[in-house]
Amino acid sequence: MNLEDLTQRLRDFAAARDWEPFHTPKNLVMALSGEVGELISLFQWLTPEEAAAWRTDPTMEFNVQDEIADVTLYLVRLADSLGIDLLAAANAKIDRNETRFPPVER
Amino acid sequence: MNLEDLTQRLRDFAAARDWEPFHTPKNLVMALSGEVGELISLFQWLTPEEAAAWRTDPTMEFNVQDEIADVTLYLVRLADSLGIDLLAAANAKIDRNETRFPPVER
Amino acid sequence: MNLEDLTQRLRDFAAARDWEPFHTPKNLVMALSGEVGELISLFQWLTPEEAAAWRTDPTMEFNVQDEIADVTLYLVRLADSLGIDLLAAANAKIDRNETRFPPVER
Amino acid sequence: MNLEDLTQRLRDFAAARDWEPFHTPKNLVMALSGEVGELISLFQWLTPEEAAAWRTDPTMEFNVQDEIADVTLYLVRLADSLGIDLLAAANAKIDRNETRFPPVER
Repeated sequence: MNLEDLTQRLRDFAAARDWEPFHTPKNLVMALSGEVGELISLFQWLTPEEAAAWRTDPTMEFNVQDEIADVTLYLVRLADSLGIDLLAAANAKIDRNETRFPPVER
Repeated sequence: MNLEDLTQRLRDFAAARDWEPFHTPKNLVMALSGEVGELISLFQWLTPEEAAAWRTDPTMEFNVQDEIADVTLYLVRLADSLGIDLLAAANAKIDRNETRFPPVER
Repeated sequence: MNLEDLTQRLRDFAAARDWEPFHTPKNLVMALSGEVGELISLFQWLTPEEAAAWRTDPTMEFNVQDEIADVTLYLVRLADSLGIDLLAAANAKIDRNETRFPPVER
Repeated sequence: MNLEDLTQRLRDFAAARDWEPFHTPKNLVMALSGEVGELISLFQWLTPEEAAAWRTDPTMEFNVQDEIADVTLYLVRLADSLGIDLLAAANAKIDRNETRFPPVER
């Protein structure tokens, strides 16, 4: 299973539920933002140490993976609806960041 | 280039800049949220029709891809820092959603 | 009841529950972001027309007010924890915006 | 200057610029989310100690107040567009929270 397969699976999932009319750019970016809000709320009251130990609590372990998954689903669906290749866009951005942020000299 | 390659490239990028101490779960989820905020601001004043036509404006076309890329970079980096396999988590979530949201009967 | 009274009420509320150690700037800005995420999720699938008619559904009517309230509570608490006067900061910003965005000539 | 005056000032500001058609619930909640994203980005890489010392850097001091102001402006404008009394909604929510979260017994 790679990113293209996931994109196709989400496309089929939306089609089978007649959700395509709802999956406009504005709506999907709002949904993405809402899921990031749920993810951030899982970490908001934790100290840095508690946050790092998130896997020691089984409920937290499930919830973090569940919310990260939701963020991923909406990001992949948004990119697909916009016709953007996520991996290509991400790599092009790292290329630009290489120039903006030179590595530390050793 | 697949998602694993991207994950590794970001890991190397952070290491070469001594950024690892900053890449805690809380910090990365905040950075992810900040980038989603930049993405949402690109679409906030547009009608649904204008949003759908985002590629007709070259500045908008660049900015949308740039911000989607930033969201992707932080999501991939966050998942890596948490030891989460994004594709596996996303697929497991779609499995659960298949049950929660049955397809439309034709 | 004015904004100062609300600020004081929230200060007393946090003190009575020993929540002050959790109310750091980073944590409160994360909580604010999480609540905005819940608010945005209420509107994400609605058409502009449906969103404007939010009061016609009693559940939606309650939820929107409930989430707007949560956003307000964390914004007021964050400003208080930072020693920022929200009304003064907001007015100073409108002063700056008067210059940045001149009114339409009639 | 109180919250009602601020609400009226923002109403006049939007009217003088013909911005009212843009100030729909969906658009304003997106704008609110975008501004919270800018606020969160100011704190994302700071340790808790550095975040608490935000006023020691004049640029940070200006930016935090500027972004908190933007969040306030959109929240007030959103509430006004929805016909919600922010102070009344916030107080009603604290009333409910008094029951949900009993104070610590001393």
